[in-house]
Amino acid sequence: MKIVLIGAGNLATNIGKALAGRGHDLLQVYSRTAESAERLAALLHSDYTTSLSEVKDEADLYLVAVKDSVLADVAEQLAKGHPDRFLVHTAGSMPMETLPTRRKGVLYPMQTFSKEREVDFREIPCFIEASNAEDAEQLRALAQTLSDKVYEANSEQRKYLHLAAVFCCNFVNHCYALSEKLLKENGGLPFDVMLPLIDETARKVHELSPREAQTGPAVRWDTNVMEKQLQLLEDKPELQDIYKALSKSIHLMT
Amino acid sequence: MKIVLIGAGNLATNIGKALAGRGHDLLQVYSRTAESAERLAALLHSDYTTSLSEVKDEADLYLVAVKDSVLADVAEQLAKGHPDRFLVHTAGSMPMETLPTRRKGVLYPMQTFSKEREVDFREIPCFIEASNAEDAEQLRALAQTLSDKVYEANSEQRKYLHLAAVFCCNFVNHCYALSEKLLKENGGLPFDVMLPLIDETARKVHELSPREAQTGPAVRWDTNVMEKQLQLLEDKPELQDIYKALSKSIHLMT
Repeated sequence: MKIVLIGAGNLATNIGKALAGRGHDLLQVYSRTAESAERLAALLHSDYTTSLSEVKDEADLYLVAVKDSVLADVAEQLAKGHPDRFLVHTAGSMPMETLPTRRKGVLYPMQTFSKEREVDFREIPCFIEASNAEDAEQLRALAQTLSDKVYEANSEQRKYLHLAAVFCCNFVNHCYALSEKLLKENGGLPFDVMLPLIDETARKVHELSPREAQTGPAVRWDTNVMEKQLQLLEDKPELQDIYKALSKSIHLMT
Repeated sequence: MKIVLIGAGNLATNIGKALAGRGHDLLQVYSRTAESAERLAALLHSDYTTSLSEVKDEADLYLVAVKDSVLADVAEQLAKGHPDRFLVHTAGSMPMETLPTRRKGVLYPMQTFSKEREVDFREIPCFIEASNAEDAEQLRALAQTLSDKVYEANSEQRKYLHLAAVFCCNFVNHCYALSEKLLKENGGLPFDVMLPLIDETARKVHELSPREAQTGPAVRWDTNVMEKQLQLLEDKPELQDIYKALSKSIHLMT
């Protein structure tokens, strides 16, 4: 497909590289900043622009991978004078209706992207939605060139997917970060000592449901250990709040 | 070494199997309940007893893997009339001084154990402590037959290790469980769709520090997304508490 890529952030970079790698024709990259646009365009062997009014008109699909906060505005500018463009955004928590064109869709790759890490797109679950059956087919075909795991999800379902991803990824990673901080401040053991435990915790839920896999003081409601651990966090009220809220919730689910 | 194993729970089972597999001589298993004692003794080709007063006297080491709440009491009974026994407990959050004998130590394998899953002990970080240099050497030698990752950690450091493990494992797993619940209640997507994200989140911190790896609305302080996600949790005040506490803490660390 002939694609114009709107955005040059982590997600745009990762999806752009994957699309180019699958033989799609990346006509052009748009970014507000010339440096980002140029850098990504060079990677994708495409043209670039920093002006939405100079976006090329002959693409089959405009893939809009920009920050949620500017999505509506960017989409409106892309649609102005071009009501027939097929706009597709990539945002988990934005409804498809944010896009003003008649032909529109969503392709939400549920993964955590960092510039420093290459990810294998084939493994990434992609959730698609489109405003009509024909565009849905086109979008499915496109998504299937990227990933082996393509699902349909409407805007309502996608909101919850994105929320679930915040729990499974962003909050999980922060738990890692807090444990790194605790080790550093108390005896200086390196964070590496936690990696086997982190890996096993992730592997376990491939076989058991997370409810079955739960271990630790809160599931046993071992108030003796929990009180001692809260005391260790005496001078960290934000960590105590987290400890209490998560322990209570584990207990409620038991 | 000749070892008596006190306890027959998840940890005792896993460590007992690992010790037997490395050629140690498991003389006897003790458990309060005959059924558990017999089951584990059969696995380890050892004798068993349900009475602490009938524990054999010729072991080099008594490995006490029982619930924290009964550890002090069990240790006291083992020591009564046998002040020279070398007692070693396995609990992350209990000080070595819980043991009343002159020769004592701790061997804390930091991992999440479930009866359903076989774990590779070689990969498990084991933290050791002993009351004198000679016993420390013996305990290190024993631990090294089990694991490639043996560290020394005193009781103070171990408390924080255990707390860090609660964050990296128990709290992380509960985030998985909450995400499973959210998916189930909203559109019924299977939890499996989260596994690639879970795996990548765990893999990422092998290369980046968790602070560098952080993504999501809270690190961008995207209040628009955060408010919408809190609304989705409107009828779940405990989840809102968790969402707020973790988002605030991510923000504080940024």
